[in-house]
This record gives sequence, C-alpha cells and structure tokens, in this order.
Amino acid sequence: MPEHQSRFEALERKIAEAGLDVFLISTKDSIYYFTGFRYEPFERPFFIIVRPGEKPVFLTPRLEAENMATIAVPHRLVEYIEFPAPAGGRYLDALRDVLPQGARVGVEMAITGELLVALSAWSPQVLPLVEELRMVKSPVEIAAIRRAAKYSDRGLQLAMGLAKMGRTIAETDRANGQLREEITRNEGHLDPYISSVWQGIWAAPYSAQPHRFPEPGDTLTEGPNVGLSFLRVNGYSAETERTFFVSPPRKQDIEVFNTMVEAGRIGFAAIRPGVSCHDVDHQVMQFLRAEGFGDNLLHRTGHGIGMGGHEGPWVAEGSDHVLAENMVISIEPGIYWRGQGGFRHSDTVLITADGYERLTDMPHDIASMTLDA
Amino acid sequence: MPEHQSRFEALERKIAEAGLDVFLISTKDSIYYFTGFRYEPFERPFFIIVRPGEKPVFLTPRLEAENMATIAVPHRLVEYIEFPAPAGGRYLDALRDVLPQGARVGVEMAITGELLVALSAWSPQVLPLVEELRMVKSPVEIAAIRRAAKYSDRGLQLAMGLAKMGRTIAETDRANGQLREEITRNEGHLDPYISSVWQGIWAAPYSAQPHRFPEPGDTLTEGPNVGLSFLRVNGYSAETERTFFVSPPRKQDIEVFNTMVEAGRIGFAAIRPGVSCHDVDHQVMQFLRAEGFGDNLLHRTGHGIGMGGHEGPWVAEGSDHVLAENMVISIEPGIYWRGQGGFRHSDTVLITADGYERLTDMPHDIASMTLDA
Repeated sequence: MPEHQSRFEALERKIAEAGLDVFLISTKDSIYYFTGFRYEPFERPFFIIVRPGEKPVFLTPRLEAENMATIAVPHRLVEYIEFPAPAGGRYLDALRDVLPQGARVGVEMAITGELLVALSAWSPQVLPLVEELRMVKSPVEIAAIRRAAKYSDRGLQLAMGLAKMGRTIAETDRANGQLREEITRNEGHLDPYISSVWQGIWAAPYSAQPHRFPEPGDTLTEGPNVGLSFLRVNGYSAETERTFFVSPPRKQDIEVFNTMVEAGRIGFAAIRPGVSCHDVDHQVMQFLRAEGFGDNLLHRTGHGIGMGGHEGPWVAEGSDHVLAENMVISIEPGIYWRGQGGFRHSDTVLITADGYERLTDMPHDIASMTLDA
Repeated sequence: MPEHQSRFEALERKIAEAGLDVFLISTKDSIYYFTGFRYEPFERPFFIIVRPGEKPVFLTPRLEAENMATIAVPHRLVEYIEFPAPAGGRYLDALRDVLPQGARVGVEMAITGELLVALSAWSPQVLPLVEELRMVKSPVEIAAIRRAAKYSDRGLQLAMGLAKMGRTIAETDRANGQLREEITRNEGHLDPYISSVWQGIWAAPYSAQPHRFPEPGDTLTEGPNVGLSFLRVNGYSAETERTFFVSPPRKQDIEVFNTMVEAGRIGFAAIRPGVSCHDVDHQVMQFLRAEGFGDNLLHRTGHGIGMGGHEGPWVAEGSDHVLAENMVISIEPGIYWRGQGGFRHSDTVLITADGYERLTDMPHDIASMTLDA
C-alpha cells in the first residue's frame, strides 16, 4: 500500500479508537506527513478533514486549488474564496458545509488558538493522534533518517575539522556550506522547503547554555566546547553532538567528560521496546545525582527525532511515553556549570526489536575528542 | 524610552483596555518583538507574563535560564525544571505560583491548542493584542523594513538578470547566494535566526499557482513569468514581485498585463490613513470584475508586512482592518488562468500621513519587464 495512504488508514483507526467522528489536520508538518505535499499555509487556513471510511476532504483557499489538485492521495477538494473574505466565502462557511454540527471532532496539538476558537461550535478535542503515529517510523522513514544521520556525522566532522584554539565560530561556519554542497551532490537535491542544515559550536563557557545561539565572535578556548550537527535532509532529521577540546583537557574536565560518557552508556543499556521513557531518564539522572552532579543537570536524557528535530517520545522523568520498536530518539545526558561550560554528546538512535542501533557513529572517548593543536 | 520597553508599555495599555489582568506571550516572534531575544522554544513552553504596572515575568525551562538572564528588558525570571517533568517541576506548577487562579488572562492568537488546553483552569481569552500592536510600525521598524526593501529589489534584479528563454529555475537560483553575500557584506551580518532570503521565479504556466513551490526543472518560456523576492533581513521583511517576459509578449498578454498594472494603480490611489482595507480591495476587485476578469481572481489585493512576511492588516474584501499611518502593506492584485499563467506585481508600501510611499522601487511597465532575448 502506498506510504501516504497507509498513514491515513492508521489515523482513521485512531480516530475510531478515540471515539471521534472526524479529525482535522491543519499544520504544515502534518500536511507533509499525510500527503508528501510541501505547503506553507501562512495565515490562510487549510484543513484535511479525515473521516474513517471516506475520502479525506482538502479544504483549501482558492489560491491553492490548482496546486492541491496535484496531490496523489485520493481526496475531495473543497475551496473557499480567501482569508479574510466576505460572508459566504470564508473558510468557516466552507467548513460548515462539510463538517456536520454535532460531529465529534478532534484537532491537532499544534493547531493555533485562533483556529481552535473559530471551531468552537464543534467543541473540538485537542488530541495527539498524529504525534502518536509519527513516533513510530515506517521503513521508508527509517531509511531517510539513516541517510540524514550519515550527513549529520559528516557535518560535525567538517565543523570540528575547522575548530582550533583561538578560532572564532565564524571561522568554523564554512562547514555549513560545504555539507550543503555535498548533500546536494549526493542526493541530487536538497529541497529547501523541507530541509535545514546547521552545524554549530558552543565554545566554552557558552557550552553551558545549550540553547543560546552561538555568536560569530565566540572563540574556541580551553575547556569543553560542544559541536552540534542538527539537520533535516529532504524531510527527515538527525543530530550528532560531541564535547571536544582544542587543548589538552584539564584533570577536572576529564573526570566530568568520562562521567557524561558513562551516563550515556547507562542510557543506551536501558533502551529497548517496552521500557518507559521515564525509567530511562530516571536511571541516567540517578547515576548523575549519585556522582554528585545533581546541581549540574539542565535537561532530560533525550527526545524523539523524525520529520521534526525535536518530537516525541520525550525521554524524561515524568514522561508517560513507552519505547517501541522503530522509534528514533536522541541519547544526550549533559553536565553543566553556569558560566564555565557543559559536557554533552548526542546520538540519533533507532529502537530495534531487541535493543537499539546507533544511526550516528562518531567516537565517544576523550582521546578522539581532543583535537590536535 | 528604549524600543522594547515602549512595546511592553503599549501592550500594558491594551491589556487594561481589554479588561484583562494579565496577558501571556508564548510565541517565538512575539518573544523577539518584545525582547529582541532570538529564541526557538521548540516543545518546552516559555511564557512572558505581562501584568500592567509590574515587571514582566519570564517563565523559562531551567535549560534557558542562564541565557534568558542576559535579556536587557527589566524582568523577573522564574524557572521550571524540564518538559516533561515530574509533578512539582512542570511549567504548570511554576505558572500556578505566579498566575493567580481567577485572573482574567489573555493569550496570543498563535498559541498552540496544546497550551490553550493546559491553561484551561484560567479560561484564557484568545485575543490579537500583539498582532494589533505589530501592525503599526515604529521608526526603528520602518528603517529596518526600508533596508529590507532595497535588498528585495536588488534580489529580484539579480534573479531576473539570470532569466532567459529556455533556462531552468535552477539556473536562476544563483541569485539567492549572491544576494545573501551582498547583504552580509553591507550589513556586517545576516543573522540566520531572524533572516531568510528567497528569490523565486514561477515560470509560465506555473505563474497561475502563486503558492506552488517552483521546481528546479521548471523552464522559462513565452507567456507571463512571475519573479518574487521575499526576504527577512535581521528581523524585518519585504517583498518585490514582477511579471516579466523572456520573449516579446503576445497581444493578449499585453492587455492583461496592463489591466493588472491599472488594478495596482487603483489600489495605490486608494490607500491612506483611515481607509478601510475592505474598501481598498473592493475598489480593486470591482475594477477587475468590470473588466471581465471575475473568474480570474485568486486572492486579495495585499497583506501587512513587518517581522512577518505575511501579517495584518489584511487588504481584503471582508477585512475589518483600517489603514493607519506607519502600517506597511503589499499591493499585489493578480489575474490568473488555470494551466496558463498569472500576472501580478507586488510592492512593499508604507502608509504615510497623507498617502503612501513605495519602499520597493522597480518599474511596473511592460517595456521594462520584457527582457532581452
């Protein structure tokens, strides 16, 4: 069965299980997931109205109708005039024609508040049906993530190859263009609408701030630097992260580095189908707390990876997700000192029937991560 | 008064006018608008809790706390542990500590359904307070859009300079890299987190599908091609669009082209402070309908431009927006034939005290838009 049709059928089963009559898809990522159609709705609402046993309805602004008609998935197209529009030509007018009052309607977690209020006549339920489907990857998706993971490793190698004591982040930025060219050459194309390529380095002490955007003038120095390759290649994502040194690591850095690697090892040893994500993170965090790093923890062990760079399952204490075969997650426990720096490796990891497979494949040990001066 | 503080004060006035106690900011664009802080929240919720007369509270995951503390706007920082997290460490736990039950709470139009449901204990109202503020630009913002508009023109000139009969879109793509380099050189930087550069050409007949992504193999041919420059330069956006020919235009193309230009002229003549956006679009559309093109209209006359490439005011029949001094809009009526092609110019236009000023400045006439073979 074609990939997209099987995704619709899986959603139809979930709609029935949830006791709903219909589910509305309205976000860019979900439109791509269910149709392969790259589409930026901007402010004009677009809905895929999914009702078990019926062809999905694509409710589209007139502006998009000719384009939408090319979508291969069997569907029925319903147009509205414009946003905004005079009464009679609005998206709600069109929606009322195809969505019976009283229908039990579900909508996506990422729907906007504006749309949710507009739909209030149907009292829609906000439910993670699509997120749940997306957590378990098909063979087609795994193949795509596997390719992205190879490029992710390659990008980090390029960036680390440019990293030297005293160099600025701006001087390592060339890795981005180089990787982009390599991908375009190997894949034949790097579709800008569903791709992004980002190699970044947090120089110490900024490695203590995992979500601060690196600045061009940040300078590589002693202490832990963290390099990240975070990319989406023609629809699917991967990440590789390594803590590395541009001068011989100090004694205290070696100890913390090795503890971080050991925390990752505990994470890897714990993951397999049926294990709760809470338990994985709890084991890792309890180890780090027992080692005396309870005040040096900023984040959970990992997150899911797929079309999105961050998506479920959340590998975190308090998460109610359970690992299953063909999920893809990151394993990336970190240890941080505010104002000084942080230590974190990250890999993109496939959950297999009996454990896991690392899709990224760079060394973890400190000798490999100490670059020549 | 510093720019960001004056934005907070304007929001505080709107909160009071709306009869609210507090307003929650949670989207990436609004975080940048109010703080100048470039931040990608991903799945970890972040709120700016704005209460008139008090310092805004930044409610942040621990991961971001060191980074957030650098924001210059006076604020109070409240951390939560992680997303997800065990009970006690969740964002809702932190929010309950700072947001009294019973407070009259407003939230943004673009808040996610997931957050809106999570906040249901406060029964928040979804209101366009931030969108309304953003519609009227400050001198700092107008200066930024003016610069973006110059680059927008320059980018379209570069792309059209590469356009020739029989060339593919891939062969015109070089304009993107070239413009990016020019901007980086002139501005000193092109911040990737708040910038995007896109020069695209819809070759006939795809010019009939304004939101279809051009494909690398699309080929320039006779009939109307539409070139678009759509960019955001260090925070602020602009667009320029022109219909052009790579061979002498056919008689019917000349007639339609000139009607499209006349429709734009009617739009320009209509815009000034106090005029309703409905009326502007209605005048333009009534002209096009009277000329016999009622079945060839796909979209409204224009939209607002600012941090976003598309934002209010919506220059559309049925819109309830009214033009005001220092709004910035596009004027871009179009005429389309399915399967054949479309005709559309677009400019970025500032509403002034007594009319308008075009911030983009490329010729409109068909002689200028007929490229040498």
